[in-house]
Amino acid sequence: MAVQSSAVQPSPTAGRHPDFAAQLQHWQARIERELSARLPATDIQPKRLHEAIRYSVLGGGKRVRPALVYATGAALGIPESILDGAACAVELIHAYSLVHDDLPAMDNDDLRRGRPTCHKQFDEATAILVGDSLQCLAFELLTDGPGLPADPGMRLKLVRLLALASGTDGMAGGQALDLAAIGRKLSLAEVEEMHVRKTGALIHACVMMGAACAPQLSENITRALDEYARAIGLAFQIQDDLLDVEGDVAVIGKATGADRALDKPTYPSVAGVEPSRQRMHELHTQALSALARLDAAGLQSAPLAAMSDWLVLRKY
Amino acid sequence: MAVQSSAVQPSPTAGRHPDFAAQLQHWQARIERELSARLPATDIQPKRLHEAIRYSVLGGGKRVRPALVYATGAALGIPESILDGAACAVELIHAYSLVHDDLPAMDNDDLRRGRPTCHKQFDEATAILVGDSLQCLAFELLTDGPGLPADPGMRLKLVRLLALASGTDGMAGGQALDLAAIGRKLSLAEVEEMHVRKTGALIHACVMMGAACAPQLSENITRALDEYARAIGLAFQIQDDLLDVEGDVAVIGKATGADRALDKPTYPSVAGVEPSRQRMHELHTQALSALARLDAAGLQSAPLAAMSDWLVLRKY
Repeated sequence: MAVQSSAVQPSPTAGRHPDFAAQLQHWQARIERELSARLPATDIQPKRLHEAIRYSVLGGGKRVRPALVYATGAALGIPESILDGAACAVELIHAYSLVHDDLPAMDNDDLRRGRPTCHKQFDEATAILVGDSLQCLAFELLTDGPGLPADPGMRLKLVRLLALASGTDGMAGGQALDLAAIGRKLSLAEVEEMHVRKTGALIHACVMMGAACAPQLSENITRALDEYARAIGLAFQIQDDLLDVEGDVAVIGKATGADRALDKPTYPSVAGVEPSRQRMHELHTQALSALARLDAAGLQSAPLAAMSDWLVLRKY
Repeated sequence: MAVQSSAVQPSPTAGRHPDFAAQLQHWQARIERELSARLPATDIQPKRLHEAIRYSVLGGGKRVRPALVYATGAALGIPESILDGAACAVELIHAYSLVHDDLPAMDNDDLRRGRPTCHKQFDEATAILVGDSLQCLAFELLTDGPGLPADPGMRLKLVRLLALASGTDGMAGGQALDLAAIGRKLSLAEVEEMHVRKTGALIHACVMMGAACAPQLSENITRALDEYARAIGLAFQIQDDLLDVEGDVAVIGKATGADRALDKPTYPSVAGVEPSRQRMHELHTQALSALARLDAAGLQSAPLAAMSDWLVLRKY
């Protein structure tokens, strides 16, 4: 199941970007290797914690966020060898958020990527510590070690971008809004605000962290990447909501209809399914239009365009 | 209660360092103000999370860790105005660890500093998010804003020191060893290892982060500070264990005998009360002896000596 849910879905983007499936598979294999090398070994103490950390991080997943870091690097001509640290760090933040979100006091999920969630496989205390440790490791990996820009100022910027995206203005704040929304009726603007923080902020950070590994970038290109990243961040979460309504549990690897079961407001529950799909495609178009400015500057927008295609057309 | 438990205890150190009580009070007032200025306001969303964050951080406490950052700065002649960021960051990591440790799945404590713990006052999900947000904010505060060294490389080093002290090699790993020890019989070496990680690593980081704000430091002084910091880190936790056996709930602000109730091995439960006290004083002597090298180099060891006196002689 885990392998199945982490497999590449080549078809949707094959038309415009024939090599994208292979490219994505390369990034997914690369991040798996890079993550594994950076996680604590299970033969040193505390072994059970290290085992739970590896279980939670290496259990498959689409690796959307690292792929976005690499795709941004590919667009800007940055070698993968200085993007690995940022790619690992964003995935560790994402992994920690899943482990904590799954806890009984939060979303109380038993299944993740077709396997028992961390607190089901181990225990709640361990799951809390896994999340805490992963967050910390994410920041540590940006300070030193392989896969980073040489300049300390650039590394510091990576830390800052990731911290801002993960905190109360970003992911953690979005999760708080999400919990507060259970059983309430939200306006569409409120749902968007929740999505932008809960998911959009970290997706946005992946692109901006990839960009921060470039020695210098014009204001124009930075703004284009910022617009692209904002658009796909929200589009990604709308597609997640749509898949929760319509998806197939065997493909997604977790229970569908979970948001409805928890009485959580989602984009489709507030706007309706068809308008949600329209909004998602509108955001996709916005993202692609922002990328046109990269091509005009002689950069390669194709990897980022393919990422956007993939994110809105994916089926899991 | 909270005010009482955060008050300075001037008597033990008054003999050797007559001004220390006033100095400590100054640092405690300073960190309270600096923390308050850096925490998210309760009139912006998500308000309940922000309220819980401020409740958890600003609820008193001895502020041992920020005081150690400032004391190290005082020893090395570093202005307080570039130590504030580090002092806030270590306290936020400490505050997050308390909120998560108090959770039902961890130590299940209802009382902290004489007030309901975060999850009792708010709810479990909020307490999880408070801890997650505080960890993140700690790292963010080291990247930019007031109260930091100007050099990005020095800021990056602060992030690294804090991350290493907080993760699986440090605090989170120590907490995992602590949980794994419940109901088990540990050797004294295992108890020390647990204490060194759970408490010692962050105490150690306070001193090394203070030192990292100095433009340059000789190898000799860095080593002396490292020895001092290791010694007081373990001494501090042994005193904590002793207070848990012998302390007065009204002074400490939380239940005493908690370790025994949870069947947790502590220094006194493994070594006995008197040998624990002896070990603590031995560590205190080691710490003071390491400081002698600061005086020999024309630096001011007095603030750090007074901190060590305070930490081993405190009654809460």
